[in-house]
Formats: sequence, C-alpha cells, structure tokens
Amino acid sequence: MLIALDWGTTSLRAWLLDEAGAVVDSRTAPLGIMRVADARFEAAFHEVCGAWLAAHPGVGAIASGMIGSRQGWHEAAYVDCPAASEDLAARLLRFETTSGTRIAIVPGVALRAAVPDVMRGEETQVLGVLPAGGDGLLVLPGTHCKWVRARDGRIEWFATFMTGELFAVLREHSILGRLMEGDTFDEAAFVRGVDAGAAQGSVAANLFGVRTLGLFGEIAAAGLHSYLSGLLIGDELADGLQRIGSDRTASPLLIGEPALVELYRRAFARLGVAAWAGDAAAALRGLRRIAKAAALA
Amino acid sequence: MLIALDWGTTSLRAWLLDEAGAVVDSRTAPLGIMRVADARFEAAFHEVCGAWLAAHPGVGAIASGMIGSRQGWHEAAYVDCPAASEDLAARLLRFETTSGTRIAIVPGVALRAAVPDVMRGEETQVLGVLPAGGDGLLVLPGTHCKWVRARDGRIEWFATFMTGELFAVLREHSILGRLMEGDTFDEAAFVRGVDAGAAQGSVAANLFGVRTLGLFGEIAAAGLHSYLSGLLIGDELADGLQRIGSDRTASPLLIGEPALVELYRRAFARLGVAAWAGDAAAALRGLRRIAKAAALA
Repeated sequence: MLIALDWGTTSLRAWLLDEAGAVVDSRTAPLGIMRVADARFEAAFHEVCGAWLAAHPGVGAIASGMIGSRQGWHEAAYVDCPAASEDLAARLLRFETTSGTRIAIVPGVALRAAVPDVMRGEETQVLGVLPAGGDGLLVLPGTHCKWVRARDGRIEWFATFMTGELFAVLREHSILGRLMEGDTFDEAAFVRGVDAGAAQGSVAANLFGVRTLGLFGEIAAAGLHSYLSGLLIGDELADGLQRIGSDRTASPLLIGEPALVELYRRAFARLGVAAWAGDAAAALRGLRRIAKAAALA
Repeated sequence: MLIALDWGTTSLRAWLLDEAGAVVDSRTAPLGIMRVADARFEAAFHEVCGAWLAAHPGVGAIASGMIGSRQGWHEAAYVDCPAASEDLAARLLRFETTSGTRIAIVPGVALRAAVPDVMRGEETQVLGVLPAGGDGLLVLPGTHCKWVRARDGRIEWFATFMTGELFAVLREHSILGRLMEGDTFDEAAFVRGVDAGAAQGSVAANLFGVRTLGLFGEIAAAGLHSYLSGLLIGDELADGLQRIGSDRTASPLLIGEPALVELYRRAFARLGVAAWAGDAAAALRGLRRIAKAAALA
C-alpha cells in the first residue's frame, strides 16, 4: 500500500493505493500550504490520511508540489534539467513524521539560465503522462502556466507564464476590472482578445483596449472579462510558440483543470494549432511512476 | 483674468492667471474626480477657487483632464487625431455653474483604430510643450503612460501603456509583491530589469524572473521592486520604440512627475536612446495656449 499526495498552494489531494497501484480511496481538502496555520503540516496530513494510517500500519507516503518548497513541510532541493522520473526518484527528500510514517517528497525542477526558472508539482504531472522516451510539448495552464519541452522522456526545457495571476490581479484590482460585469463566457469577445493578444505588441499596451473597446461600446461590459482572458492567453500562446519555434514538431498536450484546458484549446485552435487535452489525473500517474522508480511501490 | 484647472483622477491643480498669462496664485487639492463624493464638482471647484471668484467677479475657467470624462463634471466628446490646439479650442465644452461662472472643458483625443485609444489631460500637456508646427515623439510616464507622435504641431498618433498600473497591482496584490522588501531604489536591479524587459518575450513570462532571481539569491528582496520596475519599463520602451520604428527621428521628450521621468530617462539611456526631460508645467502651458486659441484669455 502507498499514500500519494498532490499537495499544492491551495489544496491537498490524497489517494490510498494498493500494491498494484489501483486507487482504494481518495480525499481532497482545502489544506494547501498557504492554508495550513503555523505550518502544522503533520497535523494536516493526519487530518486527511489518519484513517488510512490507522488501517494500514507502516504505510508510507509520496508527495509532490509546493509542500516541498521553502514554505512547505521540508524543502526538497531542485533537480536541474534535463530531468527524468529516475532523476527525481533518486533525489526524493525522505523523512519520518513524529509518529514514524515514512514520507518522500518529489523535488522540483530548475532550469539554470540567465534568468532561472523553477517548477514544483508540474514535473510530476509531466512525467506522469510522458511515455518512456517520449518527446513533445506540454502546456499546463494555471496561476503560473508552464510550457514544457520533453525529449527522450526527460524534461529538457520549460518556461513559466504568470497569465493566470495577471488575469486575477487585473480583474480584481485594476481599473479594467471595474468596467467588467458578470462572469458568463463570451466566445466572440474571447476570440477577439486572442487575436489582439497574439498580434504584435506588449501586453501593457494591449491591455488598455479592454477599457477603450468598452468605452466605445464595441464590447459589452459583460464580455470584457472574456476579452481580457483571451488577450492574456493569446499573448502567452504567441510568445510560447515563438520560443518553441522550429522545435514544434507535434501538437501540444494540455494538462490542467478541464475548463481552463478548454479555453487554451480554443485559443490554440484560433492560432491554427491543434492541441490535445491530456489526462486530468496526471499528478497521480506521476506519483505512481516516481514511487515505482524509487521502489516505494 | 482666467482660472486654469488641471483636474485629474486623484488631484486638482488650479492657477489664477492675469491678462498676460502670468501666475498670480495657485492651489493644489486632493480633489481628483475619484475623490469628490457624490460627484459634487461645483462644490469642489468653489472649495479650491472660491476666494478667486469672489475677488474677481466674472472670471472664467478652463479645465482639462478626467473632469471631462463620463465620470466627471460634464462629458466633453473626444476629438479625433490629428488634433492641434485650435481643434481642441474649437471643441471646448462650455457651460455655466449654478452661480454663473463660465467653464470650458478641453476635450480628450481619440485615435480610431481596430482597437481605439483615448487620452484626457495628456493632450493639453503635449500641446503645451509642442512648438507651433513642431514634430517629435513625446512619452508621458504615469499610471497609464502615453506615447505620442506629433507632426506639424498636431497629435497624429498615440498609444497607451498600462505600465504604472501593472506595477502597482503586481506589487500590492501578486505573489511577486510578497517577496519584496522596502522601497529603496536599487540601480543595478533596475538596469537588470530593463535589460530583461527589453529582451524578446512576453511580460507574463519575464515576470516570473522576479520570483526566481529572488529565490536563487541573485537579487536581494530589497532590490526586487526595482527589478520589477525596470522589467515593465524596459518592456514598454522596447515595444514603443518598435512601434515608432523608422519614424524615430529625434530624441523623445519626457513629461511627467520628475522622479518617474528620471526612471524613464535612465531606461531609455540603457537602450541607447537619449531622452529629454520636458517642462514639468506642461499642463499649465497647454491650458494657456488652448485658452488663447479660444480667445478666452
């Protein structure tokens, strides 16, 4: 038996797996690392997994995500690119809880460059869906969207786009947000935003269009949030595709929350790129795979 | 005599001018249109200028800025580009207060394009410093920075960059702001930010560098706000200079709050462009000029 934990900033997902890796039980709790008071992670772990620990004495756990960050339970040092499942398995941060449960935390991955980049949690999702020896481009939409290029089954390169966080702060705290009404998706406004964002020009300049298109009545107040969403995603996609350049040999695979994956799929389609929707259970698959490589399961 | 008002979102600056246009008296009050309760603009006007009105019966006023917007005192319709002082003078919105004072509001300027753009207040500053028949590029840093191309004494083209507002919302409300300490200017971090922002790539991607450079200790927490400032200004300058392209025939003139103008001057210099610091009293000069063209003074 093994407990698998996808422990991020806002939530904790936990699965109890049998010897064959099949899910016996699962739980989700709003106990992400930013929501655990006084960093009492062991208490949070017991709150979610206590019944499993009691029923299966000696069961261990593997965890990925922000739980391994400096603000998490124990810091798991980054592994540099290129990184395969075996590299992460070899560098698991292992410790025991005060009650003797063995925990292994998957390290994040770093890209050393003039401006470095990092991921925590996404590496497990990527390696969960990537076939052994596989190549390709993966895009993981979210607060901080990751573009990941894999080669020979390894994470070779990646880039982070703060698209989701930009959308949230602009909507909640800028003058643009004050012009918006409701949150019903407006397809036409979204597509217009994708086109504007993907066209040449800085986001800082294109953003003001949210205001002027509203001011001149070209987009209704109820459609402005979709326009902003399209604008930011269009900008990201154009920039990401340019970075990938001639290395773009296959359709990108999208991994993430289904509604967000669908937005990205539509935006990619608008730019003439057919993107796949990947397995929503990527994190669990990755945890299983790394646990197997580390002979934990 | 004439009263000149630079009435924006956050503050109201007022000058009493004699027949020759010389400043007899001046006042500044935190009575921008967003700070006047219940849109009681006439009361705010009397609070600031009441003594002048009493001392000089029959004196009129000319105003520019957000006071002419839909959220202001009375809406002054936009004049389309190209726009000269005479075009604005011919389209002043004129009305009388309930106590009989004649008020003239300078219209804003609109650029009609696939995505339209607008300004209110900056047109008066630009036309205040532009010589009759003058050509050139003007950059007006602020919450919403304007890049303005003038030709033959007219505002021919302009673009808005939401750089100042992006900096404010990211600093106050994003994860990046939580990593920052203090607000002492760090020249080296600023320059590094300018370089990163001016290099190819989307702001959404470059922004994550604020986090990773801090994480790996390459920039101290106390320098991250300067890095972010440089990053956003560098991105704006690279994009603005590209838009201007072969039309860039002279040094840009910077108009705005002196500390911000100095930041932009340094960033332009880093990109090999020598920018001038313009007259800080541009708004007053513009109000005088438009009043003269309208035979108000």
